[in-house]
Amino acid sequence: MAREKFVIIGGVAAGMSAASRARRRNPDLEIIVLEKGQHVSYGACGLPYYLSGEVADWNELVVYTFDYFREKRGIDVRLGHEAFEIEPGRRLVQALRPGSQPVAIPYDKLLIATGAAPAMDIPGANLPGVFTCSDLASAIRSREFLERKKPKSALVAGSGYIGLEVADALAQRGIEVVVLGRAENVLEGFEPEIQAKVESAAGARGVRIKMNSQVTQITPSGEGVDAHTAGGSEHADVAILATGLVPRTSLCEAAGITIGATGAIAVDDRMQTNLNGIYAAGDCAQTQHLVSGKPVYFPLGTTANKMGRVAGENAAGGRARFEGIVGTLATKVFGLEVARTGLSAGEARSAGFDPGFVTIHSVSHAKYLGGSALVATLLWDRPSGRFIGFQVAGEEGAAKRVDAAAVALHARMRVADMLHLDLSYAPPFAGVWEALLIAAGVSVKESGRD
Amino acid sequence: MAREKFVIIGGVAAGMSAASRARRRNPDLEIIVLEKGQHVSYGACGLPYYLSGEVADWNELVVYTFDYFREKRGIDVRLGHEAFEIEPGRRLVQALRPGSQPVAIPYDKLLIATGAAPAMDIPGANLPGVFTCSDLASAIRSREFLERKKPKSALVAGSGYIGLEVADALAQRGIEVVVLGRAENVLEGFEPEIQAKVESAAGARGVRIKMNSQVTQITPSGEGVDAHTAGGSEHADVAILATGLVPRTSLCEAAGITIGATGAIAVDDRMQTNLNGIYAAGDCAQTQHLVSGKPVYFPLGTTANKMGRVAGENAAGGRARFEGIVGTLATKVFGLEVARTGLSAGEARSAGFDPGFVTIHSVSHAKYLGGSALVATLLWDRPSGRFIGFQVAGEEGAAKRVDAAAVALHARMRVADMLHLDLSYAPPFAGVWEALLIAAGVSVKESGRD
Repeated sequence: MAREKFVIIGGVAAGMSAASRARRRNPDLEIIVLEKGQHVSYGACGLPYYLSGEVADWNELVVYTFDYFREKRGIDVRLGHEAFEIEPGRRLVQALRPGSQPVAIPYDKLLIATGAAPAMDIPGANLPGVFTCSDLASAIRSREFLERKKPKSALVAGSGYIGLEVADALAQRGIEVVVLGRAENVLEGFEPEIQAKVESAAGARGVRIKMNSQVTQITPSGEGVDAHTAGGSEHADVAILATGLVPRTSLCEAAGITIGATGAIAVDDRMQTNLNGIYAAGDCAQTQHLVSGKPVYFPLGTTANKMGRVAGENAAGGRARFEGIVGTLATKVFGLEVARTGLSAGEARSAGFDPGFVTIHSVSHAKYLGGSALVATLLWDRPSGRFIGFQVAGEEGAAKRVDAAAVALHARMRVADMLHLDLSYAPPFAGVWEALLIAAGVSVKESGRD
Repeated sequence: MAREKFVIIGGVAAGMSAASRARRRNPDLEIIVLEKGQHVSYGACGLPYYLSGEVADWNELVVYTFDYFREKRGIDVRLGHEAFEIEPGRRLVQALRPGSQPVAIPYDKLLIATGAAPAMDIPGANLPGVFTCSDLASAIRSREFLERKKPKSALVAGSGYIGLEVADALAQRGIEVVVLGRAENVLEGFEPEIQAKVESAAGARGVRIKMNSQVTQITPSGEGVDAHTAGGSEHADVAILATGLVPRTSLCEAAGITIGATGAIAVDDRMQTNLNGIYAAGDCAQTQHLVSGKPVYFPLGTTANKMGRVAGENAAGGRARFEGIVGTLATKVFGLEVARTGLSAGEARSAGFDPGFVTIHSVSHAKYLGGSALVATLLWDRPSGRFIGFQVAGEEGAAKRVDAAAVALHARMRVADMLHLDLSYAPPFAGVWEALLIAAGVSVKESGRD
């Protein structure tokens, strides 16, 4: 009897997590990974640190090598293989392969882990001197350019966390950087005081932030490029686009695989699409937001790993579930740790909540041991008193503080339940009253609940 | 009509938190704080850092000054006033006061916030050259001795977190230190791999740890002292006792105030004792352990502040509740961050659980950005699958990681509910799989639940 075949399209976070988990669950399964690029299983979240040079060699970002998967785990990883069609009726994947005819690969179970592509809908996005930092190949190309051409100035289109991480990386190379952002403030989804703190930290590092400046076109200009916005244009020697991610779903329509309301692939909590035996996971798939109860597209490596693991477990015969996320995100930019979990005020209103929010000031740890300032915002739903979001920023010890809040969101706590959470205290790590507890106290007082 | 009188016995964490909260709740209340010492509202958890010299001046440990409370908050703080009798029938507190006759102070509401005393039941504990580090006065005396006598060697009796913090502080002054501990390993309540890591870190800093060495007597010897144990004796120029804390409850028996099973004052979730209008809070009171459901004596500054705040709110007419703790504790010793929350295996068995536990290894953050090793132990109850404890140690980024686990304990999660908690990830702060999630995954696998 032929071995059961599990085919995975895409070999980065979700795909390789799925392959590893399926192998652990079923040593007899035939596992084939079709990766269109030349790299598998790397930490995409580390790319800005490769761009800056803090990570000297991109091999440091590779979690497990191609050889490891093929030789130690018996996973048939095929590089340079680009799937271009799924035939659910015949259970076949059609794929291009290097230097040869396309190949039809039969499957019993299939996982779509095609990830996301950088938004490239700006005329001029493909010009020389215009890059992205969206996968390992593009990061390698960008850094090669930086080291060879030694640009003095750079512009970054996009002021989300990836745009800011890239801007920080370029500034660390001594390049003069301007960030052009579409919105009113950087880091959309963060509350105003935290956004202001980030913008001020950027300024302190010599990075210019120009908001209300959506890039509408890029044109060649001398040795560099001009980026055009409604308000004028900026010239720089190099441009990096970080204007968002688009889930790669091009295989789905012809195959009859349902795309969700967010534009990403719809899956159930077992990571299965509408077609039996076909799973999707990672940056190409949507998930549930456990606070809003609504589908959400929130592409992050940590979620991709979890979704991939669940998909792999189930494709190999298991019964794992991934219920969803609570919107946790952390970044370090311009010497500031910034993190959030749950909904922003805007997201909360869209989801039908009536959000209240308070912003408080606290410390990373005891001032007499050199503790530094934290600013934190807590959001709750006024009618129900339910805790719905927390954000925090500071020079150190800030980001991981959202984890306690994330667990409280998973547990659907009310702010009144959070006043006396037994969070750790010792002078080298914390102030006596944690930011989360201070904020919960103020919000309970403001909402008249106790 | 006379103003209502709220009398508080004890002016450190719980007492001053209560005074502040009561004042905020009721601007008209007369608030009298009887403090037998000369200091109020200081961070007792910072005393080891004063001993080491990291905190140069003890005034840095004072959160709010005596003058602040008297002048800005209208709180009548009376230093050098030692309450020696409570007369519930007449609603009077009898107190000694400096240079005058005892005074009878009437109250409408009373809070006992007398804290804890260091265990001094070792013959010789009062000899010259033998100190504690249990309150600001004793820390000032100890440091004065260290600076004046410049001892070359020190012994610390007690290997709990305070003993180790004191040993670390002395070692940082260049003193040769030996720790004499009663138990098998340091930091009772931590699991073996974490204890071993701490013992090894102590060794690396030149601090000798001698376990199974309960100090039974201290005798004068030359310029210093000898500490005697069943296995022999240790000589040193100075000794510091950190053999545990005893709740100060001496006012209770004559007043008819009930002492709980733990030996500390029994209170309900409003911090009221068995006598109407008499509250207790802080290190003299017991509380509920929300994991075991049993009364517990777990004296910590952070809990004292919470209990004090609730007592103050209620004494001033409010309806606040303090439900209890989950056993969270953090310390930094010998360059290691160490923290726990929930029950240890031994505590779990005593509470009627059937604990399983796993120990896993993880990283503080991405290795390619210099992340360091973490070791973590997760405990669960085998029959129910309930999560009951988490402990972690590492050189950096370790301690605050227990907070997410503490919230999961408050929420009474099962380990199977914790596999996909949406905890923050970014390379400067975390590995892709958080220690808590890795440990939850292993425990679910080991327990055959998923």
